[in-house]
Amino acid sequence: MRDVAIIGVGATKFGELWNKSFRSLGIEAGMKAIEDANLSGDEIDGLFIGNMSAGRFINQQHVDALIADYSGMVTNHIPATRVEAGGASGGVAFREAVMAVASGIHNTVMVGGAEKMTDLDDASINSVMDATADAEWEAGMGITLASNYAMIARRMIHDHIATREEIAAVSVNSHFHGALNPGAQFRKAVPIETVLKSGAVATPLGMFDCAPISDGAAAIILCPLEEAKKHTDSYVKVSAVAQASDTLALFQRDCITEFKATQAAAARAYEMAGITARDINVAEIHDDYTVAGIMAMQDLGIYKTGEAGKAFLNEETHFDAGNVAVNTSGGLKARGYPIGAAGVAQIVELTEQLRNSAEVRQVKDAKYGLAQSAGGNGSAVTVSILEVI
Amino acid sequence: MRDVAIIGVGATKFGELWNKSFRSLGIEAGMKAIEDANLSGDEIDGLFIGNMSAGRFINQQHVDALIADYSGMVTNHIPATRVEAGGASGGVAFREAVMAVASGIHNTVMVGGAEKMTDLDDASINSVMDATADAEWEAGMGITLASNYAMIARRMIHDHIATREEIAAVSVNSHFHGALNPGAQFRKAVPIETVLKSGAVATPLGMFDCAPISDGAAAIILCPLEEAKKHTDSYVKVSAVAQASDTLALFQRDCITEFKATQAAAARAYEMAGITARDINVAEIHDDYTVAGIMAMQDLGIYKTGEAGKAFLNEETHFDAGNVAVNTSGGLKARGYPIGAAGVAQIVELTEQLRNSAEVRQVKDAKYGLAQSAGGNGSAVTVSILEVI
Repeated sequence: MRDVAIIGVGATKFGELWNKSFRSLGIEAGMKAIEDANLSGDEIDGLFIGNMSAGRFINQQHVDALIADYSGMVTNHIPATRVEAGGASGGVAFREAVMAVASGIHNTVMVGGAEKMTDLDDASINSVMDATADAEWEAGMGITLASNYAMIARRMIHDHIATREEIAAVSVNSHFHGALNPGAQFRKAVPIETVLKSGAVATPLGMFDCAPISDGAAAIILCPLEEAKKHTDSYVKVSAVAQASDTLALFQRDCITEFKATQAAAARAYEMAGITARDINVAEIHDDYTVAGIMAMQDLGIYKTGEAGKAFLNEETHFDAGNVAVNTSGGLKARGYPIGAAGVAQIVELTEQLRNSAEVRQVKDAKYGLAQSAGGNGSAVTVSILEVI
Repeated sequence: MRDVAIIGVGATKFGELWNKSFRSLGIEAGMKAIEDANLSGDEIDGLFIGNMSAGRFINQQHVDALIADYSGMVTNHIPATRVEAGGASGGVAFREAVMAVASGIHNTVMVGGAEKMTDLDDASINSVMDATADAEWEAGMGITLASNYAMIARRMIHDHIATREEIAAVSVNSHFHGALNPGAQFRKAVPIETVLKSGAVATPLGMFDCAPISDGAAAIILCPLEEAKKHTDSYVKVSAVAQASDTLALFQRDCITEFKATQAAAARAYEMAGITARDINVAEIHDDYTVAGIMAMQDLGIYKTGEAGKAFLNEETHFDAGNVAVNTSGGLKARGYPIGAAGVAQIVELTEQLRNSAEVRQVKDAKYGLAQSAGGNGSAVTVSILEVI
């Protein structure tokens, strides 16, 4: 197996981008990444796309070919592959691309993540998102992702794993960083009272506990590590790409305050990278709901059960706190959550941090970055580790 | 890069399976493949699923986790990945799985393809399928996949590449073989008059020029070639997995009577396998429309332009004709076309042929098998080559 490096990244601004189409977003992110990698498009020999449901959001299947086509890469008839794993679509696309280069079958590839959600009305959007729950045993009975996470939050509070305030602090942390990221959907820090008093979505979770509906795209260029220097001095090594699954329905699990898929993927990732949770300096985690952020930090082994919420509340997760910096991009909550783009955008942020190009939100001397991306209620999770060498 | 082998295959019967669910079909095919490979489910460390649109057909995204869950493989939290490339979804899933084993990141993996289409009404089904055409410039204007293929057929007849009868003969060939395959949706040979006189879909193409709407699933088990003997004596080597893209919209191409994506994927596959088109003994090709079958045989280089139609009409493509046997499974036309399963089922058929377990439709002494799977109007094409060693 060959080692793989990231040699370029790019992302659009995330937000309600009424005047941009799915295809224009994909191209914008891709062109930025190509330019960042000092490549021309015809040096790329493969394309991997994370996209959750263009089939339902914009009535377009087969977006693999669409993006190859509109980015001009179709002139070389390069293979283009779309993967979907609910909210983990981008994380899975990244892993597929790394395996393709590691195998030697591909050499220089682009990973893109894109979603255009705001062309539908809110009810239809939520119906698509809830289709990542079990259609027969959950969604078909009226369960939504939000209500599942609300049950998790209630159990977490009941079991003294986190207080309501600690759960809310995950949102405060993401908004704090979102204010520092020019590409974020919400560029405003919010006090904890705003989160606690926000309109109910599924109690105890309110509007500010939930990531927004967004449009956006992100892209990454990969090549074999040994060729990275030819293209750029500021490359980053991909030290691990791990993935795990769990039951689709929440009720089928023994415990709902932890995600076994995150735990399994993290264990595989640490082993692959030859490190432990203690080595991580900066982490991008899947905070589609605040409570998921608490679970992620505990399931990744970065904090013990009962400790993650305190860390968020005490602002130990800030980029400049000297601990593990969490969601310096603004996370899904404040940077925005164009579903298929989210997992790719996490890698973009980690790359910026590890090569010291994160500007006002730069984490000092970060060597290891970790991204955790989740689909459904933790039914599919990817954990990737990047490393400065 | 490690060499990869197929050690087990399985498929459900294809058809209008009113009494079976998406999940039950997936499990049936998977269990057959596991049994065929003499494995237990917990020896599998990865799952790759080809599925076009469960999100629209059965309101279920995230079928990667669903299948891992319902097959029991979720107990080991194995990575499960869904890929989509329109009609090529199964072919692309197979390629992703081969790369995963070749890279060394995975060892023993299952590739599944599944689609449950008949839960929707016909108009809705066609709307999903036409979403593989360009939503903005084709489908949005009223173009369908069938009408695009009808234009291709007209041009082909006009340019004397094939006659109407030769195009119809592709269907006759598939039905001839479907009658010999117990798992086929249509087990009845048809005379050419039946095809020519069938009700118009998009003239000149009639009902018998078009693959049916189907439910079904297929599965394959892969492992490193060097470990194959541990499991079975009748394994098959994967000698090439290639893929290529083309413009999503047909009108953007210089020529519509050939698919450049098939040509590009075939050239890459022959190079990877170290063979030429002359070495192929048995081929499974993507005959979602009869005219696509003519194009496939020519674009693969097995026949020269203008010759493929004659071969079908003269029955040179029959399993026992001593030439390249084509669609011995019954092809998409007669075996059936559950979209995401089609590309995987092609590999199942080739494996049966190469290991001499194809019973009454057995091709004699086949060494090389080729599968060609296409999405949209040839916007994504995979070409895989299997080999007896």
